[in-house]
Amino acid sequence: MRGVIMHAPGDVRVEQRPDPVIEEPTDAVIRVTASCICGSDLWPYRGAEPADNIPMGHKYVGVVEQIGAAIEDIQVGDYVVGSFVASDNTCEICQAGFQSRCQHQVMMGAIGTQAEKARIPLADGTLVKVPGVPTDAQAKSLLAASDVLGTGWFAAVAAAAGPEKTVAVVGDGAVGLLGILAAKRLGADRVIAFSRHADRQALARKFGADEIIEERGEAGIARIKELTNGYGAHSTIEAVGTQESMLQAIGSTRPGGHVGYVGVSHGVNLDGLDLFFATVNLLGGPAPVRRFLPELIDLIMTDQIDPGLVFDLELPLEEAAKGYQAMDERRATKVLLTI
Amino acid sequence: MRGVIMHAPGDVRVEQRPDPVIEEPTDAVIRVTASCICGSDLWPYRGAEPADNIPMGHKYVGVVEQIGAAIEDIQVGDYVVGSFVASDNTCEICQAGFQSRCQHQVMMGAIGTQAEKARIPLADGTLVKVPGVPTDAQAKSLLAASDVLGTGWFAAVAAAAGPEKTVAVVGDGAVGLLGILAAKRLGADRVIAFSRHADRQALARKFGADEIIEERGEAGIARIKELTNGYGAHSTIEAVGTQESMLQAIGSTRPGGHVGYVGVSHGVNLDGLDLFFATVNLLGGPAPVRRFLPELIDLIMTDQIDPGLVFDLELPLEEAAKGYQAMDERRATKVLLTI
Repeated sequence: MRGVIMHAPGDVRVEQRPDPVIEEPTDAVIRVTASCICGSDLWPYRGAEPADNIPMGHKYVGVVEQIGAAIEDIQVGDYVVGSFVASDNTCEICQAGFQSRCQHQVMMGAIGTQAEKARIPLADGTLVKVPGVPTDAQAKSLLAASDVLGTGWFAAVAAAAGPEKTVAVVGDGAVGLLGILAAKRLGADRVIAFSRHADRQALARKFGADEIIEERGEAGIARIKELTNGYGAHSTIEAVGTQESMLQAIGSTRPGGHVGYVGVSHGVNLDGLDLFFATVNLLGGPAPVRRFLPELIDLIMTDQIDPGLVFDLELPLEEAAKGYQAMDERRATKVLLTI
Repeated sequence: MRGVIMHAPGDVRVEQRPDPVIEEPTDAVIRVTASCICGSDLWPYRGAEPADNIPMGHKYVGVVEQIGAAIEDIQVGDYVVGSFVASDNTCEICQAGFQSRCQHQVMMGAIGTQAEKARIPLADGTLVKVPGVPTDAQAKSLLAASDVLGTGWFAAVAAAAGPEKTVAVVGDGAVGLLGILAAKRLGADRVIAFSRHADRQALARKFGADEIIEERGEAGIARIKELTNGYGAHSTIEAVGTQESMLQAIGSTRPGGHVGYVGVSHGVNLDGLDLFFATVNLLGGPAPVRRFLPELIDLIMTDQIDPGLVFDLELPLEEAAKGYQAMDERRATKVLLTI
């Protein structure tokens, strides 16, 4: 099969790779119908993480082609969505809704789903069947659910977004934008997005942002306070992962408020005393997308949400390198790879 | 009046100080009937914080002697308990239960309650009247409620201690010990305390600890995991404030679990990526004791809890220096000053 390999930072190629096979009785193999390039794929692309001949991709929708002997809930031919972490969905951590930290978790990034096929470990726990046949727009949205929507949704839930809450959103990439959508769906009274890119501001408003702040850092924090009688936001979504964005998120939040952070941390270091006196609830990490998939699939298949709008560039798998380049240069927010 | 002044690290004296007066119409002046020495008072005593001629003490119970013109809820002669942060109890932060970060907060440490009298700012919001006349034992417990019990209680609530939860407690000082009491009262299924001091272990068990772990750091974390099928605690109370204790608390907690941290941070630095993959809820800071006071006063005055047991040394105010020394040398867990 064909699949994306990153040979070195900036060097992405589509190459022939061995077809995946059932390795464990709990595996399935799917034919990937769409995958995408994630903001986190840019870290190795930019040299901020090792990139030495690694298969890429951890988001996917597709159709089940083979199942292992122990599979009970998934059938060959099912159209399925899964998360970027394979999980058994039965351990105490999964049962508590933290499938991204399942006791038997397998990171899909190690498998690489920017490819024609993919082996899905723990398939019964990981994959969720889509009812009916999705339209093209729905298929895009399902792919978004597989990761960026699920991640934005988790961030909003972790930030305790809901009725009577003012929600601030740090980060205007796909996750931040879909965090806006999530916060609004969860009933947030008012969503304030930080963004200085006109196209992203437009999408932020489309997803429900009530106000946009262009300032960053201390100036951004001062602006949020101005807009909230000096208190700060009740709930803040952090969707970048840098020191600046974390401090901006924590500083934007009132004491007793909640910060949901989902940007993979790069160089973040939190001073204990500052955190102590911030007195905010902090919850973040790899999003347990699996927790939200049934609900998100339902919202998508009934056309209540359209998160697929975050994809602003669509390329065939063979042109993956162009997609990486476009995202790296911020010419695209999110690239869909059709397979 | 007489009051404690710390002249320099290790140099505590009881001296004549000016009697407090009503400065603002929202003030009250109380006759302090008991105060105590806090674990946090040891930081300046040991030179870890500035100690240059500062009045000491931020816990108190007492009787109202004077009230300002704007006071409505408190009367002269009332027996009252307050927290270490004066708060208006009306701003949005207070109303959300975070009175320790009130928009108009005044830290009582700046006033110094190890003294015969104390001015209490924002007295209507800060002070809670005790119904009836407390016994000696109840008076001790009310003093504990003023800070260490309220702080332990907040830690347990922040750690989401409750039914079906296994709660780990890092720190066997007064706050940690009362965190055990709080976790049990909140319905925790199982409380595991870290302690290597026989006397504190005994008190931990008295307050409801089911198991004691003597190991610390990585070994302590490994032991908690052993005791919880590899998962870690659902809820962890951190009541020390060092790098080691924070990492031990976070490491002891399962993904999706909660860490309530109330040890004032000294030299704590959290790596963002470690925190990201820990995927725990983190909430801490100066405890909003005021939130819990009505409930705690009721539990104490109906003899349902006896947190005053943490006081293992009682001295008259004039001998405060001996009390500091005893706590510094760990000969006493908690010193009560009678006034």
